[in-house]
Amino acid sequence: MVAERATLSLHPDRLLPADPTVRAIARELYAEVEHAPIISPHGHVPVEWLAEDTPFDNPTTLLLTPDHYTNRMLHGAGLVDLDRLGVPVGSPIDEEAAREAFRLLCANWKYLRGTPVRTWFDAEFHDVFGVRVRPSEKTADEIYDQISQCLTSPDFRPRALYERFGIEALATTDDPCDDLAYHDKLANDPSWSGRVVPTFRPDAYLEPGRDGWLSLTRALGEAAGVDVGTYAGHLEAMRVRRLYFKEHGAVSSDHSHADARCERLEETEAERLYADALAGQISVAGADALRRHMVNDQARLALEDGLVMTIHPAVARNHDPAAFARFGADVGGDVPTGVEFTRALQPILNDYGNAEGFHFVVFTMDETVYSRELAPLAGYYRGLYVGAPWWFIDETDAIMRYRRAVTGYAGFYKTSGFIDDTRAFCSIPARHDVSRRVDCGFLATLVAEHRIDLDEAHEVASDLVSTQPKHVFKL
Amino acid sequence: MVAERATLSLHPDRLLPADPTVRAIARELYAEVEHAPIISPHGHVPVEWLAEDTPFDNPTTLLLTPDHYTNRMLHGAGLVDLDRLGVPVGSPIDEEAAREAFRLLCANWKYLRGTPVRTWFDAEFHDVFGVRVRPSEKTADEIYDQISQCLTSPDFRPRALYERFGIEALATTDDPCDDLAYHDKLANDPSWSGRVVPTFRPDAYLEPGRDGWLSLTRALGEAAGVDVGTYAGHLEAMRVRRLYFKEHGAVSSDHSHADARCERLEETEAERLYADALAGQISVAGADALRRHMVNDQARLALEDGLVMTIHPAVARNHDPAAFARFGADVGGDVPTGVEFTRALQPILNDYGNAEGFHFVVFTMDETVYSRELAPLAGYYRGLYVGAPWWFIDETDAIMRYRRAVTGYAGFYKTSGFIDDTRAFCSIPARHDVSRRVDCGFLATLVAEHRIDLDEAHEVASDLVSTQPKHVFKL
Amino acid sequence: MVAERATLSLHPDRLLPADPTVRAIARELYAEVEHAPIISPHGHVPVEWLAEDTPFDNPTTLLLTPDHYTNRMLHGAGLVDLDRLGVPVGSPIDEEAAREAFRLLCANWKYLRGTPVRTWFDAEFHDVFGVRVRPSEKTADEIYDQISQCLTSPDFRPRALYERFGIEALATTDDPCDDLAYHDKLANDPSWSGRVVPTFRPDAYLEPGRDGWLSLTRALGEAAGVDVGTYAGHLEAMRVRRLYFKEHGAVSSDHSHADARCERLEETEAERLYADALAGQISVAGADALRRHMVNDQARLALEDGLVMTIHPAVARNHDPAAFARFGADVGGDVPTGVEFTRALQPILNDYGNAEGFHFVVFTMDETVYSRELAPLAGYYRGLYVGAPWWFIDETDAIMRYRRAVTGYAGFYKTSGFIDDTRAFCSIPARHDVSRRVDCGFLATLVAEHRIDLDEAHEVASDLVSTQPKHVFKL
Repeated sequence: MVAERATLSLHPDRLLPADPTVRAIARELYAEVEHAPIISPHGHVPVEWLAEDTPFDNPTTLLLTPDHYTNRMLHGAGLVDLDRLGVPVGSPIDEEAAREAFRLLCANWKYLRGTPVRTWFDAEFHDVFGVRVRPSEKTADEIYDQISQCLTSPDFRPRALYERFGIEALATTDDPCDDLAYHDKLANDPSWSGRVVPTFRPDAYLEPGRDGWLSLTRALGEAAGVDVGTYAGHLEAMRVRRLYFKEHGAVSSDHSHADARCERLEETEAERLYADALAGQISVAGADALRRHMVNDQARLALEDGLVMTIHPAVARNHDPAAFARFGADVGGDVPTGVEFTRALQPILNDYGNAEGFHFVVFTMDETVYSRELAPLAGYYRGLYVGAPWWFIDETDAIMRYRRAVTGYAGFYKTSGFIDDTRAFCSIPARHDVSRRVDCGFLATLVAEHRIDLDEAHEVASDLVSTQPKHVFKL
Repeated sequence: MVAERATLSLHPDRLLPADPTVRAIARELYAEVEHAPIISPHGHVPVEWLAEDTPFDNPTTLLLTPDHYTNRMLHGAGLVDLDRLGVPVGSPIDEEAAREAFRLLCANWKYLRGTPVRTWFDAEFHDVFGVRVRPSEKTADEIYDQISQCLTSPDFRPRALYERFGIEALATTDDPCDDLAYHDKLANDPSWSGRVVPTFRPDAYLEPGRDGWLSLTRALGEAAGVDVGTYAGHLEAMRVRRLYFKEHGAVSSDHSHADARCERLEETEAERLYADALAGQISVAGADALRRHMVNDQARLALEDGLVMTIHPAVARNHDPAAFARFGADVGGDVPTGVEFTRALQPILNDYGNAEGFHFVVFTMDETVYSRELAPLAGYYRGLYVGAPWWFIDETDAIMRYRRAVTGYAGFYKTSGFIDDTRAFCSIPARHDVSRRVDCGFLATLVAEHRIDLDEAHEVASDLVSTQPKHVFKL
Repeated sequence: MVAERATLSLHPDRLLPADPTVRAIARELYAEVEHAPIISPHGHVPVEWLAEDTPFDNPTTLLLTPDHYTNRMLHGAGLVDLDRLGVPVGSPIDEEAAREAFRLLCANWKYLRGTPVRTWFDAEFHDVFGVRVRPSEKTADEIYDQISQCLTSPDFRPRALYERFGIEALATTDDPCDDLAYHDKLANDPSWSGRVVPTFRPDAYLEPGRDGWLSLTRALGEAAGVDVGTYAGHLEAMRVRRLYFKEHGAVSSDHSHADARCERLEETEAERLYADALAGQISVAGADALRRHMVNDQARLALEDGLVMTIHPAVARNHDPAAFARFGADVGGDVPTGVEFTRALQPILNDYGNAEGFHFVVFTMDETVYSRELAPLAGYYRGLYVGAPWWFIDETDAIMRYRRAVTGYAGFYKTSGFIDDTRAFCSIPARHDVSRRVDCGFLATLVAEHRIDLDEAHEVASDLVSTQPKHVFKL
């Protein structure tokens, strides 16, 4: 019944509310932000791509292999083992396997109906690669060939796409010990006029109960040139590396742990637990306590160095140990859990939350905290911003729910602005576009219901894609 | 002010979104599925009704007595003691009392406004019994008489209604020791062409801390012909009875416990706890641990025998002990509690969740888990399906919330299809109709917002009432 | 881009759904309730204002100083220290500081976009004070002057406003030891024809683990003329003071604690813990246990004296200790936490929940409990009513979510009717108006989707602002 060979088109009004009055307002608002430069303050695009401007290999390694949003849905549908997509990222996949993987995607297009993955692919295929037929078993090879053809052109190398996508600033995510050489190379390249900044991501260094923490700690000490034999030393090493990142352009540090707690320990207790950890003898409870103290210290350091602190806790990482054993992290086996912020964040908020210059962005995948915890907290504490919907809730309906839940008590100016959080480079414009469309739809509803005036909606729509993310992320 | 004698009519566009553009699309989609056969893979209609084709007694014992949705609302409104409705099911209620109970329902029609009970009654009264006046104090007797009149006709006996309702398959819920004689009788009746299948529901047998578990265990051993003196024997008895059910048409087992946890125990530990339970000496914690292991074993058995496993945990059963003492279970005193799936289901999902042929349907009454836990899990694990909204959330707005929350990351093809879960036989068509209308409304919104194409929406609407439930429930 | 000098107008259709069909129905429903008298069964307006009919001081002390909704948003936006608004209530603030604070509000009007605070201010400014320009830096002084001018007129004294607002009944919130002299004065004033009733609010007296409990207990004993040396005495003192309140017009008692639990203790255990508390030696766990028993006893007393019992648990009070130290309670540093009702309320519901005359209204700021716990519970227990959205969720979208979540299984007649819960006297009409508009919008959707008939919607709209709150609160 479904057409085997349908057109792929992008309706100009897509994702805008269906009501004609609201849509007309939304369209007017959207017209003004549609082509605004993209600010992307949190994501996972490898800086090497831009530093070296390497041509992309083939459609599969560009679009499927690194994108765990797509991987997981094809896996969940029972269609494919992850290795057939070239997962983990970078493992070799030959041309025939790449084509076969791409065919699987197209032939099973129906599994993506109603998902943001579909929305993003529609836009990528259409706008980036000029595809005009809907993916299906029949059209898979044709689309594959068309994209492959594109990838041979210099216009489709990373830097050209960066320009074409209208990206103004792009943050990567980096290990604290990274020398940021690729960032330097890029920043110092006279032919490059973009802005790519690193982000300090010390998660594994703050988990003293995890395997490998000891060697990470040693590496940290070496990178910082600091003796990390005490907790004071560890803290100093963190201070040094954060400053190194800042000097190389970083504007924020990013944190994800099992919960959001951040109680401080007495200094002697912190040292005692740290010594236990170095000796490989820390208990689970001790490791949690020390980690929470360390997270609190990251906020302290933020007060000194001015890096924005972003957190997105409460994800059960690598939920499927078999897949983790075969493919490693980030292949789709991460699943959200419930989270609590009101009590958990109190130590940081009480001590730094109203301090000048402290910016603290809290992301969640547990939507229940929007109206119950995050909007009330952000409405009160000066430095706190409600992070945009992220991972698993970064789609049309969820973004609308976010605005509906948060705006009442946090307004628009205590929200972070959109983050794409993606390693799927070509999906960046599409992701930001979804956010812009939904925000305009929400604003249009407020106007149509006479809750704000039209000129105000124009200002908010524009602020949300420009001044707001720049302010929040100090860009 | 409210009319004492108003018309009862069913608008053809009822429950479809009000926006004219969206409604027109929804109407077109709905036209195609409106008369599709009903697949009912989980419910509580007594098989005896169909096996014996007994005429229904009177409107009250047909429509009020067995329906705890209605019982509880009349009770909550302070209108009636449960015994005045003939609760518990089957207790004698004379003609005058039956008529009086029916009058109470009609006179207090306003308490049902905005509820699904109202929607279902509207459809039952109108479509099944030809009622054309709105229930009220004035019209109660007239409606009672009209339905009573209907019930004297052979057209209103269970089998005739089954045919008229267009039911293709109907599952009952059955005790593991049931000999399924009524199912056999029905299946072997040459004058019967329907399909009624039993469902294996072993809850009470998996609660070694509860009163009565010991005698149930003995009964299980007898029914299976297996020595249940050890846990290995208990497991074998379960294997035997599940196969018995499968041979008699069952396609699934159904499970409801206080939580969703399912950690396995070491074999010796399971045996030790089981011995404690047999000796009547198991602790509360031990009973929980053994129950979770037993639930895990049901999943293991499912891998062997292929029965679909459905779970719907986290209900506080018999919340009102006074009502429970008087009327027993299932009279409306069950209340949902919060539930956690991400961690709880990990043992089953890790061990069987990606295995060929394992189908695992998870229902919830805690809507917060849709976007946070179930859609992410079902989007990744092959065997996992997000159960349709159920009990307390099986009404128009909640079904819409379900689609809006789940579709983003599980799509349509990792959802279970609707279940009516009812013992109110005459409400089955109305319940499925509500689900079809809301699904079409949701799909129409996606089309109107240019998120999917119209031909795709047609396919999804049709799949959701036919291929999808048949696939998920192996029907 | 935003106009510096825009008109402030109130659109007659504001807050009604945008769809023309739905809006037309909503408008018709709203027309009937727009001017219905205001029933305000829970709030914080000081009775002195009305008893003494004191003229209001200036726009800031009237509109900003006492309103923690506004305080907190200006604080969260980083715009102002709380002392610059004259917080805590009543601290002296001179004319120039008052004007400066008002300027800050107007100049930062954008921070309120999309919030209910904006909606309330729009209505207050326009309808109460005749303001016709939108607040901005340019118009701040003009608006300040206009309101100041109004405040010099007898038409803007509290009693005149009470009349003009169409208030039929207004409840205050009072300390159990209060002699209610102002209430008496007002009630006995022959020139006064309104109705202001006290509310019994014993929270601090039921927290035996808190500082100050001992002196409160002594005061209670004195006020009641009862020896509170035993728990039996404490209970008797509560009985006496509740009756005193009832004799002085009270219709309800109000309760807010960290959780909703209410397990009873054995009598001897209660006495033992109470003795510990008097001796200043109660443990944290003991204090919690005794508090829960005391809350349960409040329900017992309610059964005797007929006062309606309202609870709104699970707020982290005074989240910011620095602000609490400087300004005391109620300055915006309260933040909701998750709450559990199904298990927690079982003791009260089991023992009194179905008893004649027991009315129990449960408010929440955790929206997740609406469909999961409160609607199912209220649908079953006779005395239980789902409280209207309140504090942090008393805005347009949240009220709509409430109706959508609750109506399915509690209908309209197990909900409480709106409460404004405010100390911002001039915002009372605006707050009730928001609720009326959203309820009419919700009802209109039900009509447009053919879920209820138009005459029924009319009746519900009217009942929700009149008979329903009067019935629930026994007014």
